[in-house]
Amino acid sequence: MSEVADLPTNWGRWGEHDERGTLNLITAEVRAQAVAEARTGRTVSISRPMPTSPIAAGPFAHPGADSIGAMQAVLFTGASPRGTAELIMMVPHHPEVTHLDSLVHQVVDGQVYPGIAFEEVVTPAGYRHGSTAVFADGILTRGVLVDLAADGPLPEGHGVTGADLEKACARAGVEMRSGDALVLRGGWNYAASRDRRIPGLTLDAVTWMHQHDVAIYAGDIGDGRPPVDPRVPGPLHRVALARLGMPLIDVADPTELAAACAEEGRSTFLFVAAPPRLGTASGVPVNPLAIF
Amino acid sequence: MSEVADLPTNWGRWGEHDERGTLNLITAEVRAQAVAEARTGRTVSISRPMPTSPIAAGPFAHPGADSIGAMQAVLFTGASPRGTAELIMMVPHHPEVTHLDSLVHQVVDGQVYPGIAFEEVVTPAGYRHGSTAVFADGILTRGVLVDLAADGPLPEGHGVTGADLEKACARAGVEMRSGDALVLRGGWNYAASRDRRIPGLTLDAVTWMHQHDVAIYAGDIGDGRPPVDPRVPGPLHRVALARLGMPLIDVADPTELAAACAEEGRSTFLFVAAPPRLGTASGVPVNPLAIF
Amino acid sequence: MSEVADLPTNWGRWGEHDERGTLNLITAEVRAQAVAEARTGRTVSISRPMPTSPIAAGPFAHPGADSIGAMQAVLFTGASPRGTAELIMMVPHHPEVTHLDSLVHQVVDGQVYPGIAFEEVVTPAGYRHGSTAVFADGILTRGVLVDLAADGPLPEGHGVTGADLEKACARAGVEMRSGDALVLRGGWNYAASRDRRIPGLTLDAVTWMHQHDVAIYAGDIGDGRPPVDPRVPGPLHRVALARLGMPLIDVADPTELAAACAEEGRSTFLFVAAPPRLGTASGVPVNPLAIF
Amino acid sequence: MSEVADLPTNWGRWGEHDERGTLNLITAEVRAQAVAEARTGRTVSISRPMPTSPIAAGPFAHPGADSIGAMQAVLFTGASPRGTAELIMMVPHHPEVTHLDSLVHQVVDGQVYPGIAFEEVVTPAGYRHGSTAVFADGILTRGVLVDLAADGPLPEGHGVTGADLEKACARAGVEMRSGDALVLRGGWNYAASRDRRIPGLTLDAVTWMHQHDVAIYAGDIGDGRPPVDPRVPGPLHRVALARLGMPLIDVADPTELAAACAEEGRSTFLFVAAPPRLGTASGVPVNPLAIF
Repeated sequence: MSEVADLPTNWGRWGEHDERGTLNLITAEVRAQAVAEARTGRTVSISRPMPTSPIAAGPFAHPGADSIGAMQAVLFTGASPRGTAELIMMVPHHPEVTHLDSLVHQVVDGQVYPGIAFEEVVTPAGYRHGSTAVFADGILTRGVLVDLAADGPLPEGHGVTGADLEKACARAGVEMRSGDALVLRGGWNYAASRDRRIPGLTLDAVTWMHQHDVAIYAGDIGDGRPPVDPRVPGPLHRVALARLGMPLIDVADPTELAAACAEEGRSTFLFVAAPPRLGTASGVPVNPLAIF
Repeated sequence: MSEVADLPTNWGRWGEHDERGTLNLITAEVRAQAVAEARTGRTVSISRPMPTSPIAAGPFAHPGADSIGAMQAVLFTGASPRGTAELIMMVPHHPEVTHLDSLVHQVVDGQVYPGIAFEEVVTPAGYRHGSTAVFADGILTRGVLVDLAADGPLPEGHGVTGADLEKACARAGVEMRSGDALVLRGGWNYAASRDRRIPGLTLDAVTWMHQHDVAIYAGDIGDGRPPVDPRVPGPLHRVALARLGMPLIDVADPTELAAACAEEGRSTFLFVAAPPRLGTASGVPVNPLAIF
Repeated sequence: MSEVADLPTNWGRWGEHDERGTLNLITAEVRAQAVAEARTGRTVSISRPMPTSPIAAGPFAHPGADSIGAMQAVLFTGASPRGTAELIMMVPHHPEVTHLDSLVHQVVDGQVYPGIAFEEVVTPAGYRHGSTAVFADGILTRGVLVDLAADGPLPEGHGVTGADLEKACARAGVEMRSGDALVLRGGWNYAASRDRRIPGLTLDAVTWMHQHDVAIYAGDIGDGRPPVDPRVPGPLHRVALARLGMPLIDVADPTELAAACAEEGRSTFLFVAAPPRLGTASGVPVNPLAIF
Repeated sequence: MSEVADLPTNWGRWGEHDERGTLNLITAEVRAQAVAEARTGRTVSISRPMPTSPIAAGPFAHPGADSIGAMQAVLFTGASPRGTAELIMMVPHHPEVTHLDSLVHQVVDGQVYPGIAFEEVVTPAGYRHGSTAVFADGILTRGVLVDLAADGPLPEGHGVTGADLEKACARAGVEMRSGDALVLRGGWNYAASRDRRIPGLTLDAVTWMHQHDVAIYAGDIGDGRPPVDPRVPGPLHRVALARLGMPLIDVADPTELAAACAEEGRSTFLFVAAPPRLGTASGVPVNPLAIF
């Protein structure tokens, strides 16, 4: 991407060793306004269910399920079972798992946000910088649904622009504010669309998010496959995550959220993400909630 | 426990096939009152951090870490790494992992809540009833900190009674209401106390929770080890979970919460638990949040 | 199977705590005669290849392979890879994996060979008796191919009898001797035949093996699915393994062996099985060799 | 190592796409002579036992075992167990696991034997070239014990030379022949010696093996830690494996073999290695046998 000048960046904005990135935008004022969005306590999940498969099913189970994001083995707990317990195996960064990317997930030019050499942060057992440790207290802010699929799924291969985002906000009568969680609905199911040209964000859309100081992104689309603009492949991961320091929730599912927003007559809500405190990874499964 | 007559029970209270148990107590009214607790948007985690260990670290890492609740392998993602990804393995029901028990976790007399034969619900790949699937939209209610460790950790081997809970509530000036999340602090670190007599709840305390229609329990203590009352071993798992249908958050850590409550001058808050949507297990790691 | 009187048994034949079962039949004389079978040093594998699948393939690999017996994750070994390493996961008792059953694998009437209560031998981490530990020095004896598929695969659902085995031996001009490894070819691929009635051994065949003091069994068929005789389901596992103490090599593949025997003009060979020294399991993947 | 001229190499000796390396030296004549070594059928394992640990032991087991090479979970097989089965996880290239390295294990200058670009052979799911697939029919050849520890373990940090090997052969009255398996005993337990300067082979010893056309190496020592000669670190992996194409059996244990050789009055035997047919890895656990 060396030919693309002036990529938006937050490297240095919050210091040379920053690990929070755009989460720094979630100020006390943003938080207070966010909780004011919660009135009835209705909760809506923005996560896909995470299907599990038996682990290499073995002689006592029906085998054959596809390799999927999480696998499970039911453990022996006594010749007369005293209870139940399982071993869970998962690859959080899986196209069927709703997961939260930490800032170490994307390497650009041998560096991770905000410009630290990858060799210095990676070990076979985890990461010294930019890991999921930063999500310890969860993420709470105002959420805004930006619905590009109100009239049906985005066209195949569509490159989402800043203008697309602007138009959807206007249509919903909402304005993006600094520190917001942007929840994007493109109407696509990533896992079920492997053979199609999945729409994705352009650099222009990422620049728009930067201008509006979005704190966190969640969507059912993200970077297109194949890239919607071959000159800037993967702008969400390679620019928003790696240069802006914006945590991403990949493979979200805002289908129910869109229905709930229609029922509630608003596009904003209290957004809460509280993934397990797995503190050494580059991704963690998450069930982000919209609270009305 | 056949000699103990009149164990409290909710079997049948919400039907013969119910999977929500005491979560049924979280009504629309309870939810509305719960979100009213959120004013500043300050969040506090009630989870222990989940340490990870390299998986059988291999030739390129320092080996030797103890076997712990979650293990992690950093995966190859390219000869020049394109990004980072990991395989995570975990046993949610581990004494170092803050986790949410679903109702299928405990078998009593060959049955699980609300009286279904264990053989009918278990498969090598997961459970047909009472699994973590019921937590899909998260759990939101009012949380109440019941702090038994305000003057220091509970004595070794102490059996917590209903009177203990009552007294702590009175001291904090709070009354337990139907549908509340009870967050108990005993001042113990389960994982670090294997060689000691860990305090735990008595049947009397479980009966008190039943009388107050507690919806969910989270604590740094739970069932004592060894049992605090040998006549009724494991009342939290064998009575509250299995007979009342009360989901349990085991191995919670309310240390920071107690400090935050002191600072905020109140013992109540918005309680939100949003574990990954792992829908076939008897337990799932969780990071419950207190929102002020 | 209580109605079946007089099941053949070796319980007590080699003591109450024996862990070797019919491997006791491999005497010094048997060994000496076995190595005399090795003349040219030609080796033929009696194992199926063990396919591996990526572990929950993740974002950087093509997903979608069926759940199979062994899974593999290529590990990170440096930002510029210093070498290669993998994590392997497997369920040895899988219908696509050639594996060696130890004597603790089959429980009958709550007991394992030679009559020890299952509760006494099992732990969540392995077995105290009858595990794969007994295979530490490998298994070496004379091997005999008994080819029931010389004229094509056995008919669907066929129940193999002692007379079938006798006839095949006569045809090949070979006599089964005490301590031999019996390698049976039925011409079936277990993993590819899930929807068909897979042929299997009858109790009569197991009795024949007992009369001839076979030390170990390997075959591409074993216990039929569904049982070839509903009155005695699973005679190979429930009688040969559990009562005779005969280790079984399940899911073998003697296809190449049959061709080699034809070329070599004989049905006997040096049989060597040397599985990894995994000493606490009830099964271990193995690549048994025929050496001519 | 660019300053070291004239490293011994077999790149090109058996073609540009060869995957067998020095196994090509095991000719029909070598095989025939090898089986002539087997007279009594006595077998001796050259493998360490592979300890297993419970996988993150969970609530029903005693936790705390160190992270080791192989982990095991006992699986649920029925509310009244029908049998036993386990999930096994292992990292074959582990300093406590006797394992067989395939030729893709070592990358030098971005290439693997015999000069193929690493990027072309590696995938997240395994390797396209130089994997363990080549071991399908096992390895059979004459084995020679070269005992450097007859008078006690090698001194700490000792660099084994060709002269050391020559002297030990002369002392045992044996001559290394083309195609032999060299089994080296240094008297060290790698896993128990992490804090000490483990002796290892020098480039001179590797050159000696090349001159004698050794087909495969197995030893309780290998490359020293730290390197015995900093100018040529890791000659066994970086020269013998990567340039000569010699499969290595790391972490072998010839202790029992040395005793058996003394009893039998000879240092040669039939060497058989038959690891599971795991066909996509860079290493596989193995139990190599010496057959007398």
